[in-house]
Amino acid sequence: MVNNYDGAIDRGLEGVIACTTKISYIIDATLTYRGYTIEDLSAHSHFEEVVFLLWNNRLPKEEELKHFSKKIHSELTLSKDQLKVLADLPSRGVHPMAWLRTAVSMLSLWDEDAPKTDDRSREKVMLRLLAKTSSLVPFLERIRNGKEYIEPMADKSLAWNFLYTMNGVEPEEEVVKVFDTCLVLHADHELNCSTFASRVISSSLSDIYSSVVSAISALKGPLHGGANEQVMKTLKSIGSLDKVDAWVHQVLAEKKKIMGIGHRVYKNGDPRAKILKEMSRSLCAKNGKEEYFKMSERIEEIIKSEKGLLPNVDFYSATVYDSMGIPFDLYTPIFTVSRIGGWLAHIQEQYSQNRIYRPRGEWKGASHREWSSFKNR
Amino acid sequence: MVNNYDGAIDRGLEGVIACTTKISYIIDATLTYRGYTIEDLSAHSHFEEVVFLLWNNRLPKEEELKHFSKKIHSELTLSKDQLKVLADLPSRGVHPMAWLRTAVSMLSLWDEDAPKTDDRSREKVMLRLLAKTSSLVPFLERIRNGKEYIEPMADKSLAWNFLYTMNGVEPEEEVVKVFDTCLVLHADHELNCSTFASRVISSSLSDIYSSVVSAISALKGPLHGGANEQVMKTLKSIGSLDKVDAWVHQVLAEKKKIMGIGHRVYKNGDPRAKILKEMSRSLCAKNGKEEYFKMSERIEEIIKSEKGLLPNVDFYSATVYDSMGIPFDLYTPIFTVSRIGGWLAHIQEQYSQNRIYRPRGEWKGASHREWSSFKNR
Repeated sequence: MVNNYDGAIDRGLEGVIACTTKISYIIDATLTYRGYTIEDLSAHSHFEEVVFLLWNNRLPKEEELKHFSKKIHSELTLSKDQLKVLADLPSRGVHPMAWLRTAVSMLSLWDEDAPKTDDRSREKVMLRLLAKTSSLVPFLERIRNGKEYIEPMADKSLAWNFLYTMNGVEPEEEVVKVFDTCLVLHADHELNCSTFASRVISSSLSDIYSSVVSAISALKGPLHGGANEQVMKTLKSIGSLDKVDAWVHQVLAEKKKIMGIGHRVYKNGDPRAKILKEMSRSLCAKNGKEEYFKMSERIEEIIKSEKGLLPNVDFYSATVYDSMGIPFDLYTPIFTVSRIGGWLAHIQEQYSQNRIYRPRGEWKGASHREWSSFKNR
Repeated sequence: MVNNYDGAIDRGLEGVIACTTKISYIIDATLTYRGYTIEDLSAHSHFEEVVFLLWNNRLPKEEELKHFSKKIHSELTLSKDQLKVLADLPSRGVHPMAWLRTAVSMLSLWDEDAPKTDDRSREKVMLRLLAKTSSLVPFLERIRNGKEYIEPMADKSLAWNFLYTMNGVEPEEEVVKVFDTCLVLHADHELNCSTFASRVISSSLSDIYSSVVSAISALKGPLHGGANEQVMKTLKSIGSLDKVDAWVHQVLAEKKKIMGIGHRVYKNGDPRAKILKEMSRSLCAKNGKEEYFKMSERIEEIIKSEKGLLPNVDFYSATVYDSMGIPFDLYTPIFTVSRIGGWLAHIQEQYSQNRIYRPRGEWKGASHREWSSFKNR
């Protein structure tokens, strides 16, 4: 056994380089996709274009983007057969990510391209998975509330259709723009746990659905996808602006963690949080939720001055989603709708430079034990 | 960024130690579970006892094993609600592992213990997953052939019930014994790709179902679970003993790989292959399939003398399963029925010493690109 590793074990492969990549990276203290900063992309681009960029390593020409978007939007629809089985699944009281994991896995059973390995079939599967996952989440919200499926509109964007098929009313342009920007901001982030998981599964040359299902499985974990839901729960439990100071000081005194604050990599602040903060300010004001925005801002102020820590991507996305009326437990599914763009890029990259992931464990157990019959145990 | 790694990138973490473990390890050129050799366990133990050992790090007392087995066997049944939705899924022409991945994921939606994190609830989920997965595979075989579900018998073993609920007739004791030994032999094997995947997903503190679904997703890949199916397809395509020599020499001349031969770790032969060979010899003779056994043996002889390579676990398990009349495409699902015992032990171990897996990538892409409008692309 060759072991090139220095013995830092059970630390979640921290500091270990697991692969080479050209997809996203933190450069000059900001997040970049394919070399473009997240500030630049969130200001000028939109989700469909960003997905094209992530998958193709370049921005599309006008006609290409039109064609690419059309292909995505034409895949938003769920078929009658799919809707029938999905409607028979338990949906109330189940974890939305467990439902989504099952639903995405199930879609593969109707997809004749799923087992194919040529580039053309794989691209079809990628477009289909991106689109249909974004339709499954609003469908879950409707069906668990006893409402009917709403047919998406193929001439509208993925973000527009998400809000429309969830609420049943045509969304306002400003809200669509904010939601689309949230999708852009969450689309990729180096080798986070779910993205790494998608690459590990792809490395056995398993199919794209298997890799995405596994990434959803990882994102479901509270150490990964669930932080903005926790932020919103915290704000609700504090209750009002006048109670923030006492609450924060108590949490600091107890040396507890505040969800949505701090980041392992960004020491001078998460660039995504700054963008989300301004969107939160505007939407909260518009929708009569200033209190939550002001509470968030006050928490940020105190933590910054007392601990030098700054908000991460989860902190202000909480109030953004809440101001749109989205239930807390759909925040992680929405994260999925965005991050699947990045996962699919990583799966494609893994296939192109593949070696199966098969690390070693360091043995700490017993050896040379011998089986004995019951009376000698 | 701290990087303790020497730069061996895109090699699937070969030689990297990803965690400490006390579950299985290769010691003195043989596979050991919890310090017991695979030869010892396959000779004296059986699957339920081995699962107890994997989960508890010791052999059970007589009463404990009785109680443990009873709990497993009482979970073999699939409920009416579950059977109804499973029956509505496409099953013909779909990849059995895609169906199984979906079915296992779906079971969690009926399992109120799935989201719980206390030890007692987790043990219930582990027993349920082990049992019900072993019932799903025979059910798939029946439903895709238009046959009805068969109720398992709670006073019989998991191996017995697998064969009974698949074929609808009570299996012979010798066949049950061989099948049970196959389950023992495949139950764990260090940090193979699917086991590593199960730990990566657990590390976000996602639930047990999510981790198992992801392990199934990894095992589905042809670089991982599918080798014994390929061995059997190869034997069928060669056709008869007299054609083996010419076929092997041609493959060697073309420098192609022969499925089921060679192993990265066992240089003096895979200990599991030796046990499987004797079972294959016996069952093939019994069931009039000597030709396939003799063909396998002849392939082994030539490869050994010409290349010094030896069969691995997949080589003789192919003819063992074939001699039982099991369809080729169920070999990987059967691998799942066994390996889930190991996965569940690893998931439990990961929770007990957790840090989220989050390695880094080495950046090979562009930087400092700037968004531009269509006319400048």
